[in-house]
Amino acid sequence: MIMKTIKEINEKIKKGEAVVVTAEEMIKIVEEEGAKRAADYVDVVTTGTFGAMCSSGVFINFGHSDPPIKMLRIYLNNVEAYGGLAAVDAYIGAAQPNEDPDVDIDYGGAHVIEDLVRGKEVELYAEGYTTDCYPRKEVNVRITLDDVNQAIMVNPRNCYQTYAAATNSREEKIYTYMGILLPEYNNVHYSGAGQLNPLQNDYNPETKSFNTIGIGTRIFLGGGIGYVIGEGTQHNPPFGTLMVKGDLKQMNPKFIRAATMPRYGSTLYVGIGIPIPVLNEKIAERCAIRDEDIEVPIYDYGFPRRDRPLIAKTNYKVLRSGKITLNVNIDGKDVEKTVKTGSVSSYKMAREVAETLKQWILDGKFLLTERVDTLGRAENKPMKSPITLVKDILSKPPITAHSNISIMEAAKILIKHNINHLPIVDEHGKLVGIITSWDIAKALAQNKKTIEEIMTRNVITAHEDEPVDHVAIKMSKYNISGVPVVDDYRRVVGIVTSEDISRLFGGKK
Amino acid sequence: MIMKTIKEINEKIKKGEAVVVTAEEMIKIVEEEGAKRAADYVDVVTTGTFGAMCSSGVFINFGHSDPPIKMLRIYLNNVEAYGGLAAVDAYIGAAQPNEDPDVDIDYGGAHVIEDLVRGKEVELYAEGYTTDCYPRKEVNVRITLDDVNQAIMVNPRNCYQTYAAATNSREEKIYTYMGILLPEYNNVHYSGAGQLNPLQNDYNPETKSFNTIGIGTRIFLGGGIGYVIGEGTQHNPPFGTLMVKGDLKQMNPKFIRAATMPRYGSTLYVGIGIPIPVLNEKIAERCAIRDEDIEVPIYDYGFPRRDRPLIAKTNYKVLRSGKITLNVNIDGKDVEKTVKTGSVSSYKMAREVAETLKQWILDGKFLLTERVDTLGRAENKPMKSPITLVKDILSKPPITAHSNISIMEAAKILIKHNINHLPIVDEHGKLVGIITSWDIAKALAQNKKTIEEIMTRNVITAHEDEPVDHVAIKMSKYNISGVPVVDDYRRVVGIVTSEDISRLFGGKK
Repeated sequence: MIMKTIKEINEKIKKGEAVVVTAEEMIKIVEEEGAKRAADYVDVVTTGTFGAMCSSGVFINFGHSDPPIKMLRIYLNNVEAYGGLAAVDAYIGAAQPNEDPDVDIDYGGAHVIEDLVRGKEVELYAEGYTTDCYPRKEVNVRITLDDVNQAIMVNPRNCYQTYAAATNSREEKIYTYMGILLPEYNNVHYSGAGQLNPLQNDYNPETKSFNTIGIGTRIFLGGGIGYVIGEGTQHNPPFGTLMVKGDLKQMNPKFIRAATMPRYGSTLYVGIGIPIPVLNEKIAERCAIRDEDIEVPIYDYGFPRRDRPLIAKTNYKVLRSGKITLNVNIDGKDVEKTVKTGSVSSYKMAREVAETLKQWILDGKFLLTERVDTLGRAENKPMKSPITLVKDILSKPPITAHSNISIMEAAKILIKHNINHLPIVDEHGKLVGIITSWDIAKALAQNKKTIEEIMTRNVITAHEDEPVDHVAIKMSKYNISGVPVVDDYRRVVGIVTSEDISRLFGGKK
Repeated sequence: MIMKTIKEINEKIKKGEAVVVTAEEMIKIVEEEGAKRAADYVDVVTTGTFGAMCSSGVFINFGHSDPPIKMLRIYLNNVEAYGGLAAVDAYIGAAQPNEDPDVDIDYGGAHVIEDLVRGKEVELYAEGYTTDCYPRKEVNVRITLDDVNQAIMVNPRNCYQTYAAATNSREEKIYTYMGILLPEYNNVHYSGAGQLNPLQNDYNPETKSFNTIGIGTRIFLGGGIGYVIGEGTQHNPPFGTLMVKGDLKQMNPKFIRAATMPRYGSTLYVGIGIPIPVLNEKIAERCAIRDEDIEVPIYDYGFPRRDRPLIAKTNYKVLRSGKITLNVNIDGKDVEKTVKTGSVSSYKMAREVAETLKQWILDGKFLLTERVDTLGRAENKPMKSPITLVKDILSKPPITAHSNISIMEAAKILIKHNINHLPIVDEHGKLVGIITSWDIAKALAQNKKTIEEIMTRNVITAHEDEPVDHVAIKMSKYNISGVPVVDDYRRVVGIVTSEDISRLFGGKK
């Protein structure tokens, strides 16, 4: 059983004796010589990815002005950075749009970050929260990356292990973070470096954990040295993510590129490469994972809800082939369509990242580190649904009637107010029954004459302070579509219908 | 020569055999038994600090709403968090004030963070940047820490190695991040845990580096496990700082406390403890550093400029004694005053942090890590001074005169316009000379009759697009206090005086 240590591998690197291959090359080696043989002589497999990573940003310290300022509102080339920190510390995020609505996402936080890495001058304007020891009201100066004390990139979510692909069922094209999706499934966009992806090559599907990557893993980040500092947001293997950190002053604009996803937002393309020490045969085997081995779900981004319909499952080999055949339903008809696939990330640049990292190691310029801890727990549950209470959605005053009215009159009330449910109340306004248009139709069919005969007496009700989702559950349980809202004296104060509830959720497709 | 490894120490910890002491206890051990003996049997020294750390904040992922939203403006209990990241990622900073001006710094980002750690409900309100795939306009829901996916504390500057103390020369009390400073040096406020401070106990003054602390060092952070992820902003040993990271969900409100520095801002008290492995004698010696060994400068916060006057140098022993004797100058008289000292951090809590960490290690619940890299370079230079150009400060149209006026008339012009410099121009408005009130006094003294006789002909000039600090340098070089501003045809377009320049810098005391 081959068992190496990172320490031994680093010694070989220092002597220029380490065998280093990219994840692509490893596929061939394992195919031809087997994982055992590969584990025996390959020391490091380098991986790479180069894609849009919106959750990226930079902590900057500008140094103290004279007189000193405690910055509250901070703008870099008219893009707001966050000043909720100490006096001249700020955080600028890639997805922050420009303050000028005419510029908006065409020049956002990502563009500021790229310009800084390019050594360009950026205009800093800040308004101060004036205090006795920070009297200055504002500061306006043009700075470059060299002028600031620290510019530490800390990205809360980078390097997704697998990225769901996207298509679009609507009749019009849509603009998303996966690019422009043509109408009626006419294209599929995907992202991610598949067989070159760092987390993919380090993944242990049985334990849903990672063999070597963790807190303290030294990485290639934007052309400089960076570190993994933990799991990223929405970390949920096999959709693992990373939180990473690195010194912007070391980075290279070739691997840090701003972009604008049309009518969606500004984003930052980040080049990340992680070296995987081939400590044993299992790791060698995993590092031979191929595009065709990586399952990718395709979701319908035309469906404007959180849980989008799964259209198909495919893999990176098919996606990278340039076309895919989908079985979809358009206007009720099942259709088989072969459409183009397009990548919103760059496999070519991912390869260049892996190759560059390989060369750094071969040149003895990059030693591996032992992680000090594994990545944290997986957690990617939906946002807690807002507890909307019945009273939050009660709009119109309630329409009610007494039981002495005729069925004709009841029908007229429903039609006049365009309602479907008519609570019946006694002389004190207390609820005694309810009738619906369905009851009226039944009366006609069964030749019933009075409200008393047709109204439902055992009425399911709701209270104003009841969460709407409880009411929704009651309605589905009793298969009813309207619930009168009563006070503590059973007086009717409103009504909640299934239309009210579905409107709350932005309307079904 | 005693040489231990972290690996060996961790083995002893696992077996419950490690000898662990706090930095306070180590002082006594080294005093009584010497560093060599101490290094022999002490395995770990625990340190601690508990102070106001404004540059602290938390990355939060709220989970996706239904329908999904791409959050742009995000408020937690009416305190703005930064939305310049991916859809439902945000960053909230301790020093961010409340949006309600009546609440302002009394309930800021720090208070939100503490409430979350306390398990309290916090109101999330966010406005969306609506797109095809994120159609929702706003979301409003009450959440607790359990409801969010990730809440990762990332503090860009924590754990200052030494903190300058503060006093106040003004005649009125002032409100600062060092608390309320009484008039005329009547108190001195200090911050920091002195002999218990983590960086202080790990510092190598010869190399200005740190013996064991670095990227990947596992620490006690806010009652949970955290990690050092690099140097902090303004890192400048012996004023070293740390950037740290930890999972807010693990933290304990006892060690994460919001506070408001009156009329200054909201801040977060953070408990940080770092274990120092006693690998050799030198480390043992350093871990015996005492309050009296740590020099602390006292600056005058009453001076509203970046570079505050140094009033005295003292140490933590004196500061922690509760009083200090200062030699100061009040209204031109040298005075010796003995005044109270006060701490804006808590030594008692710092001790508790060190004790808690000690117990964790003794209980085998906390293993040490080997740093994967040292802290980065030191950099704490001032903000690049804004390049103010001459044209930015030219206010009034220039007052000029022709050389055929009398000296009396020249004097009247100076007095009438309250100016000190009168450029002399020819019929085309071209500069031919300059006179000042000094020249007029000289004319009187030397009985000179005409402007031609007294005006300076070789005039130092400036251009509109010239940086003001260049002009300031010229003025001091030629010992003049006013410089006419001319265009390319040497026509006078204004004048810059030393008063204009000093006003630019907020006026000297």
